[in-house]
Amino acid sequence: MHFQRQTISVEEALRRLLAGLTPLQEEQVGIGEAHGRTLARDLAATCDMPPFDRSPLDGFAVRAADTAGATPDRPVRLRVLETVGAGQIPRQTVTAGTAVRIMTGAMMPPGADAVIMFEQTEQPGELLEWVGVKRPLRPGENISRRGEEIAAGTCVAQAGTRINAGTLAVLATFGYAQVPVVRRPRVGLISTGTELLDVDQPLEPGKIRNSNAVMLSALIAEAGGIPVLCGRLPDDLALAKRHMAKCLEEVDLLVTSGGVSVGDFDVMAALADDPDVTLLFNRVAMRPGGPTTALLYRDKLVCALSGNPGACFLGAELFVRPVLRRLQGDREAGLRRIRATLAETYDKPCPYPRYLRGRLTEREGKLYVVPDHNDKAGNLATLGKSECFLIIPAGGRGKQAGETVDVIPHAAPDWRDEA
Amino acid sequence: MHFQRQTISVEEALRRLLAGLTPLQEEQVGIGEAHGRTLARDLAATCDMPPFDRSPLDGFAVRAADTAGATPDRPVRLRVLETVGAGQIPRQTVTAGTAVRIMTGAMMPPGADAVIMFEQTEQPGELLEWVGVKRPLRPGENISRRGEEIAAGTCVAQAGTRINAGTLAVLATFGYAQVPVVRRPRVGLISTGTELLDVDQPLEPGKIRNSNAVMLSALIAEAGGIPVLCGRLPDDLALAKRHMAKCLEEVDLLVTSGGVSVGDFDVMAALADDPDVTLLFNRVAMRPGGPTTALLYRDKLVCALSGNPGACFLGAELFVRPVLRRLQGDREAGLRRIRATLAETYDKPCPYPRYLRGRLTEREGKLYVVPDHNDKAGNLATLGKSECFLIIPAGGRGKQAGETVDVIPHAAPDWRDEA
Repeated sequence: MHFQRQTISVEEALRRLLAGLTPLQEEQVGIGEAHGRTLARDLAATCDMPPFDRSPLDGFAVRAADTAGATPDRPVRLRVLETVGAGQIPRQTVTAGTAVRIMTGAMMPPGADAVIMFEQTEQPGELLEWVGVKRPLRPGENISRRGEEIAAGTCVAQAGTRINAGTLAVLATFGYAQVPVVRRPRVGLISTGTELLDVDQPLEPGKIRNSNAVMLSALIAEAGGIPVLCGRLPDDLALAKRHMAKCLEEVDLLVTSGGVSVGDFDVMAALADDPDVTLLFNRVAMRPGGPTTALLYRDKLVCALSGNPGACFLGAELFVRPVLRRLQGDREAGLRRIRATLAETYDKPCPYPRYLRGRLTEREGKLYVVPDHNDKAGNLATLGKSECFLIIPAGGRGKQAGETVDVIPHAAPDWRDEA
Repeated sequence: MHFQRQTISVEEALRRLLAGLTPLQEEQVGIGEAHGRTLARDLAATCDMPPFDRSPLDGFAVRAADTAGATPDRPVRLRVLETVGAGQIPRQTVTAGTAVRIMTGAMMPPGADAVIMFEQTEQPGELLEWVGVKRPLRPGENISRRGEEIAAGTCVAQAGTRINAGTLAVLATFGYAQVPVVRRPRVGLISTGTELLDVDQPLEPGKIRNSNAVMLSALIAEAGGIPVLCGRLPDDLALAKRHMAKCLEEVDLLVTSGGVSVGDFDVMAALADDPDVTLLFNRVAMRPGGPTTALLYRDKLVCALSGNPGACFLGAELFVRPVLRRLQGDREAGLRRIRATLAETYDKPCPYPRYLRGRLTEREGKLYVVPDHNDKAGNLATLGKSECFLIIPAGGRGKQAGETVDVIPHAAPDWRDEA
């Protein structure tokens, strides 16, 4: 047999996949197109934030010294010089016995060293020439100091960061109308399997519709990649190799589904003999998806996932997503493992670690994981609800409810209590 | 004062926002455009899954009765009639003393009632006329039965579900090339504030750049909405009302930022007197963002968020996101509260519940929340890292590390251990 399989762990498989990867090139996009992209460089604050001393509330800018001894019964009366709204520049200087009416976010007038809020003055709703201050202030009270949140030059967003709504607020604040991001990886998708029909084809005896192409396209887009549909692989080995080589010229990475098992019609297996091919691994210690294979064709990565939808989904989350994150410069790309209490017993033994889909939930501050009972690897119905994979160790008799298991989260939990 | 403020809880505010909402109309999109959209209807399995009895592995389809007594030393020899690949239709019937070579996913031939895997036969890699079966099989062993995963007619995806990669696999399997989804809500965005510069403008004294418009656009898109930039609100009240009414004709919902405090220049406050306006609330028991306001202008919702970036972000996550989810038919739209152990002391007292941004982490199966120390409401630097809001109750002296707090998650945790 030309395709000896050596089993390695999920962690080792991922290590081999990520080992040779370097981030793709940098490109500039407008801030309106930057959402979901990955920063190519550390970005610094281009000014202090706030950029000037300002008032954090609606009130009166005063000299704290003037307010000594003020009480609700014996307010200190100050002459109001002007009103400064947000965005305006104060024209007057606050001197002894005077105040400036000031709005939230407005620049502090020179001479003032504290702000008293409207509610702590007499007749707070009125625009009058005099204001009665009802309590004493400390110097510096109620002033947002220039630079107190962020000093100019501070790194405010790091290379490798996925740009979300919050990051965008930071970039906008510092005037990054153009944003340096990493080019999105182009990911070729090939489905193998003579049993596959297109989504819009009527069912035929012995056949099923291709669900992996649309699923993988979505996963790739979620991870920041651009899916490129590269059709089916021809059954003929020479034609298949030529097709793959052609696809690889136009993409950064190729993902196939199907054709990794030990059957007669496995083109992927035959490819391993090609001199242009360096095999990274061809069996992973996991169920489903054990025969998951990865190789380098010349310098480009080919991930060959199982055709079974559940195994394909698992392989894509465990291997393809971290690869795409790393290609976009995410230095921490990888699988995060957490621990959670198993909410329901899973007692089927398995010679390899079993990766069950599941959902996280919380009770009394403890993390629980609810397995999806997808012991049939291909069970489709719960695919859309998966938030994590919980790992049932190899051997033994599964795990009982209440035992602790390792969990690899892959999506935002819904946090619904399913108990 | 024309704008009396009555404080209500976050939960009551959200209840009022969601109370009158009904999902937007249904529309059909191709499955390639359905990712991230929300299902308008329950969808049923259009066929059994698997659609026919099939082999879950590479092996030989046999009659279990023929294998009685088989051992590795004394294998039962059966004549191989043909090979059936995935997608092919068997031409032969398995009769006593015969077998059919069968590939993973291929249709079971008539007459056979079990499958033995290659590895449990003699010379498993070879294509021979005879196969030696090395162990006895039970009837039904290693057959994936028609309909065993999903029976035709079963609901496989529910109305209100956000379509993810897993959902797409299910829809593709059942031939939903066109998908009934809810129309995306169009959300008008208005920034108020004379201090605001555009992102590409150079900084001027007293001014800051508008970070809320780009942040809110991204949040709205994340929640499935279409952001529609509606410019600035004029300072003049009559002009401002006309501008808002005009915007509302073209959107399903209007979100403003800024101009909800008690300052002089608050157009939103003045609007509350308009006969076309029904005020829903104008103060929420939370810090930051207490003056957050919501009203109905004729039948359409206007959410007026604070201009302060941190308060704007909080208001958008607590109120705008659930509104958008509900408008898209998500019946469970709302805020999920979980409990977690505070990882660091936060000891500043506050007269109202304080919503601190933070991140979730896990230690020994327990859920921890790490606060972002963003006691300055406007603190921008950590906006992009926020995964949840942890709630420091009103009064008291804050919360100590190790105490349990309520947490409202809003994004996928990174699960980094920050301890």
